[in-house]
Amino acid sequence: MNGGTSFTGLTGKNRFPVYVSPVTMELINTGSELLLGRVLNTHLQWLGRQLTDRGYTLKRQVAVPDGGRDIQAAVREALGRADFIITTGGLGPTSDDLTRELIAGLLGRALHHDATVEHAIRHYFESRGRPVPARTKVEAQVPEGARVLPNRQGTAPGLVLVVDPNPFRPDGRRSVLVMLPGPPRELRPMFTQEVVPVLTEYFPPAEPFACRTLRTTGLGESFIEERIDGPLAPLVQSGMDLGYCAKVGEVEVRFVARGPQAVTTVATAEAITRGLIGEFIFGTDDDTLEGAVLQRFTQQKQTLALAESCTGGHIANRLTNVPGASAVLLAGYVTYANEAKIRTLGVRPETLRDHGAVSEATAREMAEGARRISGADWAVAVTGIAGPDGGTPEKPVGTVFLAWAGPHGTTSARQLNPFDRETFKFLTAQQGLHGLLTAPTARP
Amino acid sequence: MNGGTSFTGLTGKNRFPVYVSPVTMELINTGSELLLGRVLNTHLQWLGRQLTDRGYTLKRQVAVPDGGRDIQAAVREALGRADFIITTGGLGPTSDDLTRELIAGLLGRALHHDATVEHAIRHYFESRGRPVPARTKVEAQVPEGARVLPNRQGTAPGLVLVVDPNPFRPDGRRSVLVMLPGPPRELRPMFTQEVVPVLTEYFPPAEPFACRTLRTTGLGESFIEERIDGPLAPLVQSGMDLGYCAKVGEVEVRFVARGPQAVTTVATAEAITRGLIGEFIFGTDDDTLEGAVLQRFTQQKQTLALAESCTGGHIANRLTNVPGASAVLLAGYVTYANEAKIRTLGVRPETLRDHGAVSEATAREMAEGARRISGADWAVAVTGIAGPDGGTPEKPVGTVFLAWAGPHGTTSARQLNPFDRETFKFLTAQQGLHGLLTAPTARP
Repeated sequence: MNGGTSFTGLTGKNRFPVYVSPVTMELINTGSELLLGRVLNTHLQWLGRQLTDRGYTLKRQVAVPDGGRDIQAAVREALGRADFIITTGGLGPTSDDLTRELIAGLLGRALHHDATVEHAIRHYFESRGRPVPARTKVEAQVPEGARVLPNRQGTAPGLVLVVDPNPFRPDGRRSVLVMLPGPPRELRPMFTQEVVPVLTEYFPPAEPFACRTLRTTGLGESFIEERIDGPLAPLVQSGMDLGYCAKVGEVEVRFVARGPQAVTTVATAEAITRGLIGEFIFGTDDDTLEGAVLQRFTQQKQTLALAESCTGGHIANRLTNVPGASAVLLAGYVTYANEAKIRTLGVRPETLRDHGAVSEATAREMAEGARRISGADWAVAVTGIAGPDGGTPEKPVGTVFLAWAGPHGTTSARQLNPFDRETFKFLTAQQGLHGLLTAPTARP
Repeated sequence: MNGGTSFTGLTGKNRFPVYVSPVTMELINTGSELLLGRVLNTHLQWLGRQLTDRGYTLKRQVAVPDGGRDIQAAVREALGRADFIITTGGLGPTSDDLTRELIAGLLGRALHHDATVEHAIRHYFESRGRPVPARTKVEAQVPEGARVLPNRQGTAPGLVLVVDPNPFRPDGRRSVLVMLPGPPRELRPMFTQEVVPVLTEYFPPAEPFACRTLRTTGLGESFIEERIDGPLAPLVQSGMDLGYCAKVGEVEVRFVARGPQAVTTVATAEAITRGLIGEFIFGTDDDTLEGAVLQRFTQQKQTLALAESCTGGHIANRLTNVPGASAVLLAGYVTYANEAKIRTLGVRPETLRDHGAVSEATAREMAEGARRISGADWAVAVTGIAGPDGGTPEKPVGTVFLAWAGPHGTTSARQLNPFDRETFKFLTAQQGLHGLLTAPTARP
């Protein structure tokens, strides 16, 4: 195969380098529930990212209802254009799960009963102490010549069909079609464990490819550029792509390289960047800021308390989504009302009277109170004006005060986050969590 | 136009009646960021639902990169099939915003400068005290014959093109193409205020159509069916569609009717259903359970406190996403650790020792402590085992105790929610919030 070209996939503020593989890929999401708006389609984002980070790019995605004509038309069109096609959904046991039969029919392949699949389905239910539903039998039907991809999280296996020669392409060129089950918890591990090897078997990268995304918070895109563009210039001149993706409360820095030196180049770029802006990097790829905070606190056997006013439990909720949070997070206090700040956290009424609930002094007393009352090593406090009302000329809507209380004293910061309510909460949480990640004694 | 047919859009556990309009509709989402997996495409779900609830259905959705060939190919194909086409994205001022030019080019329509649009853009910036960026000028380019849809939340207007005769259909039949901006906060009000009138102007419903979705929590689908299927049978026999959509912690009940009696029929069905299972209905259409709780507490001038263990701030976070939450929610306590339950909420060490942290006794003391300490009229407490570890034969993973303390005493409940962490938190929150909605004194 030929090598691909590299380009900046997104322009303007979101320059995002990707490697444009010469392999044409398309995604077909089946399911009437998608078009009726009953279910959010998360497959495009997840698969798009997985493929991009492996040096492949999706060229088109389509969603069609469960009806036979629609699925067959979409598959026929994709087979006429694409080298690699992924379908999602419609492999289950109910009467609207038609993908397997429709695609087999389109390609003139008979379905046969596969004893290995049936055995796996039986095992799935029996190991859970449940009877095997009769209708799951249809999931053991396999089109002639298909490769079966085991489903470790459910019952319907994935299927790979190599269409060669391909009757829907003028030149008959081969297409590979992969059918995946719809539930994300089944699809995702199956993609990573089973589909990626199939992909690289049939469409091996023309040359080594490496990419890395560093996730940062606390420093604007232009400030990051200012610090790293110069030092990384030699690598960029030698062919590495460098890009940024600015989101709310986060900037992604991304390196993409090809060729024999790809892995080394990307590793060098990462090391240089960590040396220059390491304190703003909280992880790579799929890492989260809350996960990074918990990991650091767990490693250091430090405990944490939260005093949230304007974020209203958002920080606590994010931290407790991470398994193992209970080892670190002793308590969170959502003290919306002044009275709660006084009663629960011991904020002094004079402080509220003289400085107001949204003030540095209040934030500091909230953090110190949360730390004292919970007995945690650290506490972070946030108090601010989410809006839409409540702003003043000195403290406009979006004003936030944060404080971090720890074994060696208390620090604080003022921020302006003039955004809608949920964005305001998210961004304020980023700032509070970032302070925990970089607090001096939280770094040994 | 001909009338449509009605069918059950989703089968099996998710029977969902929709009215299948004879108007063929397609959605084209443009943007390389969608295919690279950088951004989640929420347009399909939102628009799909909006259209379905107005008696129209999307037949196909496609996402294509910003490149010229891809957008034009997708629009050409859609024009060959569909009566009504919506595109999203690519109307902004940056160099990869090409939708307007590409579609005008495909249809052979010249772009002209529109002084009214330029004036609106100028006003948008000037009213915010910001200079007008030179590059926004491109947003005032309007294809020949297009109708302009004002953008009240941003700068790029929407555009409507009536393609009549349509060169891409064998019979030349008219298609209507609507271009909408990509940001949801611009697209959504523009759709509701501007696109819906265009849609009903060009494709008026053949007969009156009415639909209603009742959102319920606390009662399983089969129990709802048992209670309402019989009493609603006469309406169903006279042509009304009745359907259910079961989700985690929620079942939607949906009525769809056509014909001169449609509105009356649906209203009758709603009244019958409210009479039978009213205490489980928290709202209609886009209402949320947290919004319903806050509305009721606000109306009754009651205040609230939360004591969350296993939900870890999830309930507080959902409540504080609703503007005006501060009038009701005085305080939330996330007391993960036993020590925090004792110190913050006054749970007795003996209770924890004798009954365990996950027990009815602890839940009751948490709720009573939160109510006492915050001074709120009401408090809800949840304590449970999220897993994956910590289960016992008597209290398996997923066990939850909830308690509601109010002016007239404390009630409690035990639930089993054996799901993954985030589902567990959500479902437990549903149960806690539903108890607040139905608590005797919270209903006058």
